[in-house]
Amino acid sequence: MKYSFGSDNHSGVHPKILKAIERANTGYSFGYGEDSYTESVLAKIELLCGGDCSALFVLNGTGANVVSLSAFLKPFSAVLAPSSAHILDDECGAVERFSGCRIIPIECCKNEIGEYNGKVNVDKVKEFLKFGDQHKVQPIILSISQPTENETLYTLDEISSLASLMHSYGCYLHVDGSRISNACAAMGIGIKEMIKETGVDVLSFGGTKNGLLIGEAVILYHRNRNCDCSTKNNSEKTLLKRRESELKFLRKQATQLYSKNRFIAAQFEEYIKNDLYLKMAKHSNLMAKYLEKKLLTLRKQDGSFAIKITKSVDVNAVYAILPFTMPQIKRLQEKYLFYLWDTRRKEARLMCSFNTTKEAIDSLVEDFRKLL
Amino acid sequence: MKYSFGSDNHSGVHPKILKAIERANTGYSFGYGEDSYTESVLAKIELLCGGDCSALFVLNGTGANVVSLSAFLKPFSAVLAPSSAHILDDECGAVERFSGCRIIPIECCKNEIGEYNGKVNVDKVKEFLKFGDQHKVQPIILSISQPTENETLYTLDEISSLASLMHSYGCYLHVDGSRISNACAAMGIGIKEMIKETGVDVLSFGGTKNGLLIGEAVILYHRNRNCDCSTKNNSEKTLLKRRESELKFLRKQATQLYSKNRFIAAQFEEYIKNDLYLKMAKHSNLMAKYLEKKLLTLRKQDGSFAIKITKSVDVNAVYAILPFTMPQIKRLQEKYLFYLWDTRRKEARLMCSFNTTKEAIDSLVEDFRKLL
Amino acid sequence: MKYSFGSDNHSGVHPKILKAIERANTGYSFGYGEDSYTESVLAKIELLCGGDCSALFVLNGTGANVVSLSAFLKPFSAVLAPSSAHILDDECGAVERFSGCRIIPIECCKNEIGEYNGKVNVDKVKEFLKFGDQHKVQPIILSISQPTENETLYTLDEISSLASLMHSYGCYLHVDGSRISNACAAMGIGIKEMIKETGVDVLSFGGTKNGLLIGEAVILYHRNRNCDCSTKNNSEKTLLKRRESELKFLRKQATQLYSKNRFIAAQFEEYIKNDLYLKMAKHSNLMAKYLEKKLLTLRKQDGSFAIKITKSVDVNAVYAILPFTMPQIKRLQEKYLFYLWDTRRKEARLMCSFNTTKEAIDSLVEDFRKLL
Amino acid sequence: MKYSFGSDNHSGVHPKILKAIERANTGYSFGYGEDSYTESVLAKIELLCGGDCSALFVLNGTGANVVSLSAFLKPFSAVLAPSSAHILDDECGAVERFSGCRIIPIECCKNEIGEYNGKVNVDKVKEFLKFGDQHKVQPIILSISQPTENETLYTLDEISSLASLMHSYGCYLHVDGSRISNACAAMGIGIKEMIKETGVDVLSFGGTKNGLLIGEAVILYHRNRNCDCSTKNNSEKTLLKRRESELKFLRKQATQLYSKNRFIAAQFEEYIKNDLYLKMAKHSNLMAKYLEKKLLTLRKQDGSFAIKITKSVDVNAVYAILPFTMPQIKRLQEKYLFYLWDTRRKEARLMCSFNTTKEAIDSLVEDFRKLL
Repeated sequence: MKYSFGSDNHSGVHPKILKAIERANTGYSFGYGEDSYTESVLAKIELLCGGDCSALFVLNGTGANVVSLSAFLKPFSAVLAPSSAHILDDECGAVERFSGCRIIPIECCKNEIGEYNGKVNVDKVKEFLKFGDQHKVQPIILSISQPTENETLYTLDEISSLASLMHSYGCYLHVDGSRISNACAAMGIGIKEMIKETGVDVLSFGGTKNGLLIGEAVILYHRNRNCDCSTKNNSEKTLLKRRESELKFLRKQATQLYSKNRFIAAQFEEYIKNDLYLKMAKHSNLMAKYLEKKLLTLRKQDGSFAIKITKSVDVNAVYAILPFTMPQIKRLQEKYLFYLWDTRRKEARLMCSFNTTKEAIDSLVEDFRKLL
Repeated sequence: MKYSFGSDNHSGVHPKILKAIERANTGYSFGYGEDSYTESVLAKIELLCGGDCSALFVLNGTGANVVSLSAFLKPFSAVLAPSSAHILDDECGAVERFSGCRIIPIECCKNEIGEYNGKVNVDKVKEFLKFGDQHKVQPIILSISQPTENETLYTLDEISSLASLMHSYGCYLHVDGSRISNACAAMGIGIKEMIKETGVDVLSFGGTKNGLLIGEAVILYHRNRNCDCSTKNNSEKTLLKRRESELKFLRKQATQLYSKNRFIAAQFEEYIKNDLYLKMAKHSNLMAKYLEKKLLTLRKQDGSFAIKITKSVDVNAVYAILPFTMPQIKRLQEKYLFYLWDTRRKEARLMCSFNTTKEAIDSLVEDFRKLL
Repeated sequence: MKYSFGSDNHSGVHPKILKAIERANTGYSFGYGEDSYTESVLAKIELLCGGDCSALFVLNGTGANVVSLSAFLKPFSAVLAPSSAHILDDECGAVERFSGCRIIPIECCKNEIGEYNGKVNVDKVKEFLKFGDQHKVQPIILSISQPTENETLYTLDEISSLASLMHSYGCYLHVDGSRISNACAAMGIGIKEMIKETGVDVLSFGGTKNGLLIGEAVILYHRNRNCDCSTKNNSEKTLLKRRESELKFLRKQATQLYSKNRFIAAQFEEYIKNDLYLKMAKHSNLMAKYLEKKLLTLRKQDGSFAIKITKSVDVNAVYAILPFTMPQIKRLQEKYLFYLWDTRRKEARLMCSFNTTKEAIDSLVEDFRKLL
Repeated sequence: MKYSFGSDNHSGVHPKILKAIERANTGYSFGYGEDSYTESVLAKIELLCGGDCSALFVLNGTGANVVSLSAFLKPFSAVLAPSSAHILDDECGAVERFSGCRIIPIECCKNEIGEYNGKVNVDKVKEFLKFGDQHKVQPIILSISQPTENETLYTLDEISSLASLMHSYGCYLHVDGSRISNACAAMGIGIKEMIKETGVDVLSFGGTKNGLLIGEAVILYHRNRNCDCSTKNNSEKTLLKRRESELKFLRKQATQLYSKNRFIAAQFEEYIKNDLYLKMAKHSNLMAKYLEKKLLTLRKQDGSFAIKITKSVDVNAVYAILPFTMPQIKRLQEKYLFYLWDTRRKEARLMCSFNTTKEAIDSLVEDFRKLL
């Protein structure tokens, strides 16, 4: 295919990342993340994430979510998540398979034009925070995506009020951040401000969707407001240390331990050095904004917009209803890969990545224009 | 069949137990163990077990083991157990299915005549207490049966040294006590001495095999030497309370919550009132001793024993190698139900129950004699 | 408590059932359902259910559902169910724990006065019948309750169209029939007509809620339209035989195998002899109708109904919004046990059982009248 | 570290493999293995494996084993495996976690000098092939490693007799081939002869241990002697197709689906082109033979061997008992990474890889000599 707006996964690897892999391909190294190089890169990531946390490399986003959530689950626990969550809709039940626990779907909020925006809020979540009935699974953690699965953004206030809500019930907050770099780039802040300071307990820190060959990280924050113990003392530290070390076993058991870990470490070192992760994400976001702007130039004869943008373009995707026939859309898809998010109303998700070009966008919009 | 020496399960229900069920069958009662009657009987059981524990009714022995063990397991935890354990050999993988955890078999010890006696000891268990390697499951609890699956008995010293060993590694000890009453009766002590004072952390307290219609209890002791916290303070109490309340969810999730709990409560009330449980067990044990004595009267012409007893007759079963042909054995089994434990060498397990009679034993031994 | 309208579980055991247990308490019997008596009773149940099926005893409703559904599940399979399903709302995640599979909730239909009626229909289910995307769990079986969790009834046509829908996709239909006797009694038909002839593939056949001490049955129909094989030949028979024998392992693994099975067999024999199950259910249903009628005599001064009945009274429960203050309701609950189904609007579920009396109903309604 | 004899995982990536990744890093590509390039490489692999099979890429060896085995498991199934199996000893319970099934350990055979050789045979396996008792898990598949976890080799006859045994019971044979290339190189045959023609049903085809950056394949053979159906007809084909498509869901659910699959495809294309996989493996094997030869030159004063080789050097590892003190060994390990396999008797596993050099070996053996 010529261009893809189908997924940021359709792009390959950033050249600097490949170079970093090559550089790491020398001599011998302990396997399974037990080499000092991997440890040094993890330390850098922990610093980037605000410290007081443990970082761990895993292979992919589904794996990151499985490991992150499992650290908090008892057999009868339930995960709460927006009904559009990746863990519900795109992971073939991996979390349930590994944990045996239920994920309870919460209906998402709608934006000002009545479209689902992929977010949940305190009121919606509170409804599900009921405890103690032996016949029912017991919520323990809320999992949200930032950006959401509709590529919209929670504000810092929204995240921290969800974190506060969960903590007030002795529960936790997970962020599926497979595109967290796009969120940071869009909001002009770091992971520390976005995640640590809002009170998130565990983060799936994505890499592959933003120019890595392969690799994600799990970031587990140490200060859990609701420690298993009620006093702030040594025993709490003990507990946190334990949960941290449990991550390693969970990772291995979830088939997410990579034998040649140095090659993920090398990618992440390059990724966070000189803010490459933010630069790539910023480019993707910019391209989505550019695409939105161009699409809005397409007008009907009465001057109204020819193409309806359905979600706020907060990061690197544009959701647009295409006013074309299905055969026309199929023809377009031969040239530009993209997916219909909602087939019934021909809503397309047009996704930009670190190497999307203005030329590709211009060409797409031009082809749209011709069809109008 | 006329008589069964096949299993103590083949006997029905003690008349007093049935009467107790009838008495409980009046009026209305809250379901699912939430009635005050059930709570009052549980309180009596907790007292019998030495206090400082929580009792909970479940439906059967497999369920008791699943609930007991699950209270201690993380995803990567392993249960240690003698290779002859009921959880390994007779529960179709119920513990693994529910928990996803491995049970690691430990080879049993042998008695003075070279026969496996169903027990493990500190040396054998210690071999498996290795921790920290992320590639390996991590032991957390040892599960033994008292009496063992070969109807032999651990001494109090043996139990308490296994408990100490486990606790010294921050691990726990479970006793599968589906025939715990037989053990208590044989050793002339109560559950408090047998279980609490030796340091056992959780007990499957059997009923069905000893004259109940249906019902077992899980007894979870509160003082866990290796609390999740390192200090002896309020936080520890909190933790214990939590684990206790978790049992209810585990029970329901394991399909072990009985809606009409009062009918298990009524049985247990009768069971422990005036030591009925001990009386029934004592009878079973006595009958096994009587059977052993009678079997030893069978001699070959040279005066040596005609039938080899392979295990020490500690409770209510006699293991004996039958010097008969398979057709002879089959014919015997038409009259007396019993199982060959080890077909190859024709080792039979002859089990006595609360209603086994001397007449049945005399008749069996007489038939043996005729065949010799 | 004096009277309970809280649950049909709050009633005890029908005297004839207790008598049957007593009668079975004689001599010795093979355990674990391997006795010929149990087999003979199962054969009678299979006949009652229309034949061409396998019956199996289990201990409780949650267990019946776990075993029934697990016979059809692969790791990546999903169960579809109304959002009010017992397996979703009242079993603490037992199906997910045992199977690791997701249950996908389907929003229920509403009745003519805008109240959820606990049912799903072909249109609602069809939405979820999508297959082949490797990122998503794959539906394989629909589980409905008859009567529903709101004590309403599916018509035979509704059941058979759901069965046809599922079969047309190579999927299956399960009926959670913990109160199936009430459904049969209300519709004046047998299980054969209700279940077999509508095309249901597997049934949880309840007993405990309708006067048994303990016990349910799983009924697995042999003719599965969507056999794993595409041809109608011997191989299909082989497959069905296999699934049938798999039930035994699933039952044991789900901790649902009862050692003294003859005592469930005895209850079921009595239960289906002379239609005791229908007689008890008919009484419960009648009492609910009587209660409804009496409640409708309560009028406001303007002649309108004082108490709103929210669901159609199809079987043995009346859902009614109580026009009382919470303190008044609490006082009533001291005398009559009942639950508020929807606390916010004070909707009570008033449930009748095999031994509910007109006197109790008269007394309740009289007390309502006094408060108006 | 200077040299590693610790694991073939300690080596990096073969330069040709890295080049292939670079070449694939161009343009856009469908994700998740749905691109035509991935499909074309899989077709080549299927050809290499003898055809009549389905190949699928996964991320690592643990994942390959989880996916391979899960395709054959029911909830109550058991996997049989040598007690030294990777799935038992090195995967932190991943198979049990995913499947909930038990792996039953079978004691390994011993070689002519009384050392365990990592293999099982027909006699040992047959002991465990017992079916039908509802209290016991039911064996369905045997998993062996070729080469074994002790780097020894099964002969073709040994493999095919194990396959025949399993098939004769309607069961299956899995080969964990994380080093299958070393086995092929040593025996001078291809995967077709080694796996397909011996009757293996499913193979974990390793790559990472033999010079890949990341990636393994699962090879599922279509002809399963014991089809779920008893007739050899269309229905069998249907079944096989179904199991094949189930692999995709199992892979996703096991967190083993890689979004940028083309980069595994590119490695495997290079890997099998011009037999690179055999060339790398041959080198590793040769180095191990060279190391063995050199070690045997070390003699005591009486002319006997100074270092005892404990296992047959069939592929790329030498197991040797080091006649040094622990401080000496620790000092050696600072220069050459290697592990003690059996600490008690100082048995080291010295592993060679695709880039092990004669210089490194000479240096190691020279340092040994100095210590003697």
